[in-house]
Amino acid sequence: MKSKLETVNGSIVAPQGFLAAGVFCDIKRLGTGKGSEKGRKRDLALIVSEVPATVAGMFTTNQVCAAPVRLCVPRVARGKAQAIVVNSGNANACTGRQGLQDARAMAALAAEAFHLPEDQVLVASTGRIGVTLPMKNVASGIRAAAQLLGNGPEHAAEAAEAILTSDTHSKAVAVRFTLSGKKVTIGGICKGAGMIQPGMSASGQRPAARPLHATMLCFLTTDAAVGRGPLQAALQEAVAQSFNRITVDGDMSTNDTVLLLANGLAENPPLTSVRQKDFAVFQEALNHVCLALARMIVLDGEGVTRFVTVRVKGARSYEEADAAARAVANSALVKTSWFGGDPNWGRIMDALGYSAARVDENKVDIGYSAPGSRQVLWSLKRGQPTRTPFKRLCAAVAPKEFDLHINLNLGQGQALIYAADLTEAYVDFNKGDVSNPAALGG
Amino acid sequence: MKSKLETVNGSIVAPQGFLAAGVFCDIKRLGTGKGSEKGRKRDLALIVSEVPATVAGMFTTNQVCAAPVRLCVPRVARGKAQAIVVNSGNANACTGRQGLQDARAMAALAAEAFHLPEDQVLVASTGRIGVTLPMKNVASGIRAAAQLLGNGPEHAAEAAEAILTSDTHSKAVAVRFTLSGKKVTIGGICKGAGMIQPGMSASGQRPAARPLHATMLCFLTTDAAVGRGPLQAALQEAVAQSFNRITVDGDMSTNDTVLLLANGLAENPPLTSVRQKDFAVFQEALNHVCLALARMIVLDGEGVTRFVTVRVKGARSYEEADAAARAVANSALVKTSWFGGDPNWGRIMDALGYSAARVDENKVDIGYSAPGSRQVLWSLKRGQPTRTPFKRLCAAVAPKEFDLHINLNLGQGQALIYAADLTEAYVDFNKGDVSNPAALGG
Repeated sequence: MKSKLETVNGSIVAPQGFLAAGVFCDIKRLGTGKGSEKGRKRDLALIVSEVPATVAGMFTTNQVCAAPVRLCVPRVARGKAQAIVVNSGNANACTGRQGLQDARAMAALAAEAFHLPEDQVLVASTGRIGVTLPMKNVASGIRAAAQLLGNGPEHAAEAAEAILTSDTHSKAVAVRFTLSGKKVTIGGICKGAGMIQPGMSASGQRPAARPLHATMLCFLTTDAAVGRGPLQAALQEAVAQSFNRITVDGDMSTNDTVLLLANGLAENPPLTSVRQKDFAVFQEALNHVCLALARMIVLDGEGVTRFVTVRVKGARSYEEADAAARAVANSALVKTSWFGGDPNWGRIMDALGYSAARVDENKVDIGYSAPGSRQVLWSLKRGQPTRTPFKRLCAAVAPKEFDLHINLNLGQGQALIYAADLTEAYVDFNKGDVSNPAALGG
Repeated sequence: MKSKLETVNGSIVAPQGFLAAGVFCDIKRLGTGKGSEKGRKRDLALIVSEVPATVAGMFTTNQVCAAPVRLCVPRVARGKAQAIVVNSGNANACTGRQGLQDARAMAALAAEAFHLPEDQVLVASTGRIGVTLPMKNVASGIRAAAQLLGNGPEHAAEAAEAILTSDTHSKAVAVRFTLSGKKVTIGGICKGAGMIQPGMSASGQRPAARPLHATMLCFLTTDAAVGRGPLQAALQEAVAQSFNRITVDGDMSTNDTVLLLANGLAENPPLTSVRQKDFAVFQEALNHVCLALARMIVLDGEGVTRFVTVRVKGARSYEEADAAARAVANSALVKTSWFGGDPNWGRIMDALGYSAARVDENKVDIGYSAPGSRQVLWSLKRGQPTRTPFKRLCAAVAPKEFDLHINLNLGQGQALIYAADLTEAYVDFNKGDVSNPAALGG
């Protein structure tokens, strides 16, 4: 099922009937430490649909879960929403009852500005944990954003900027395609950088006893007409293949959130079942958008110099393949070897060996390829070092992006994880500066 | 059961009837990169008892497990040994059949030198994974060590030096105490530095489905007379409270090994049951030795500037307390905040929330104290920030050593983990230098 996807400008305002704004309201404090050199930073975004939209969402499964997540889970479950208000600089997490009141007040302020029912507004926050929101700033930000709302690319770009924290640049994409003769567009913006190993579910509840491991936020808009059930199913699948497969530092955030509004203005025949032919086309486009955004998060992770796709196959099950890939992707020693451009298979074997996956060291193959290529340069075959010269292996892991191939040769289970290296810049950034508490990270 | 423990010199040769040596045999290559400035480094150690000894051992539960571990597990299970030969610079891990042959040959060479049955000799290795041992060097090292063997403190010190890899200094201790009127001594040496989160068992098999996570090596000697069963029980308990509770970087090695030889020359009434009164005295002394050595490993971990004892209580079970403590102790964001001297409770809450432990954010207490002190400065009580000034909290996390207290307030489960910070020096060391493969780390 390959359909034509055209990349278009405008990200979240590329679909019909969406407006956006990103403004300054000084939640990110001024005049202190890192990032302040350029003066104020945008820190409040609004995304509004001109008409009521169907909504789907995925949320962190961290038990310590931020107030905006607690607010959104039931609102999204009701299936309808029309606006999203987002602040950066403060996560509104671990803020108790006051936090929940503030999240609700944020929604209410936006609802008032657009004469919407309060529960049609969703909320997201990112930034430092454990500090209550400066609600005066938030209120002035929402008023300013409501004034500035527009559907030009600049409006989307300002919203994309306003949701960033330690990211070095905005992350945005939009694609256009055809559903039964109608042009449909999906757009999205996201942020990441640190505390990145999302494990999201629709309810915010863990799917199983298995513990999953930045804040990552992603806001998606589409003018497709999609029913609540298929929309949530499509988002779940797209997130499973993208955001839930990335790791920067192995830390799952309290705030991870993906929201998708579908306002139906494209006037395609509504997607009411996952079995419709058009649903697969929509799914494919949504997968593309989510994967593109997820990749941007890893590539712009704190201090990241390498983007490594860890591809495990031959595990006894999907779960074991996933466990093996995550053990490798989160090993401090493997990640520092990537930073050094060292094709160190010993550290990879070590991580496989302590993972929850069954591993037989005499069966393991380890190799490298260019991104997405099947031309694998094998370093290890059946546990034995190959004759590939060390210099060729070094050349394979020198580029900013490469794929690591691991075959456990024990079964049919496979999984992949998009991973990053661990660098001195990551440590330097996250050690912070206690002489300047306002500048400390999340 | 407090008995008097006297600290004595001589570490592994402090007990009667033990000899040691540490020599140069160029397994750690010369003339290249880091650590070579001072020229040759000792890289082969011998430890010999003048009479046959009872032996106990604990081994890595990593499925990818080095040849010397495979060799030792059944030999230790038979209960008797008289010598240990150890090399550094090469882990003899992921070396297949050749590796096992080499480990056996190493033992045979030492056995020949002392006219011992081959299976009375135990073997351990540490260093780079995936390279076969340079057996000519090993053989010349064993011959040299056999010549130089002695029971002076200098002999023990040279053995302690010969087992090091990235450690910055030797780690050794010995204590003397009384068992039924007889002076008994326990001595030990160990090495650590990186790839440190041991999870050892007696069989090298995982105790449960739960995945456990340096190479750490530890060699213990005692002149106590102890039966095989009580000796293994005592070592298991001592390791559970020490080496299995430390983490530097969360990576469990392929080679982790603790060996204990008890030669009976102290002539105490033999300890044949764990229910003997003297057994508790012996256990206490062994616990002391293992904990002292384990602490040295964390304090000398690669790039480490902070030693943090993470004390979790109030979990629903021991297993959940352990999971919570390990999640905090291995979180990249928590560890970098320690490096920065940032009392960041938000990152701690985040890690607790994604751990396998049940956590209710409104019940969590987080605080700091001096090592071992009950005077806790609380940062968070029942999920609410306390009024403790930020500067006082900063002062609490500024020292090289402090305790982190976490009370989940959900039950009676408690556990502690000895942890380290994550620093630029760790990353710098482990990124290695591919232009100089011989100098790359394990």
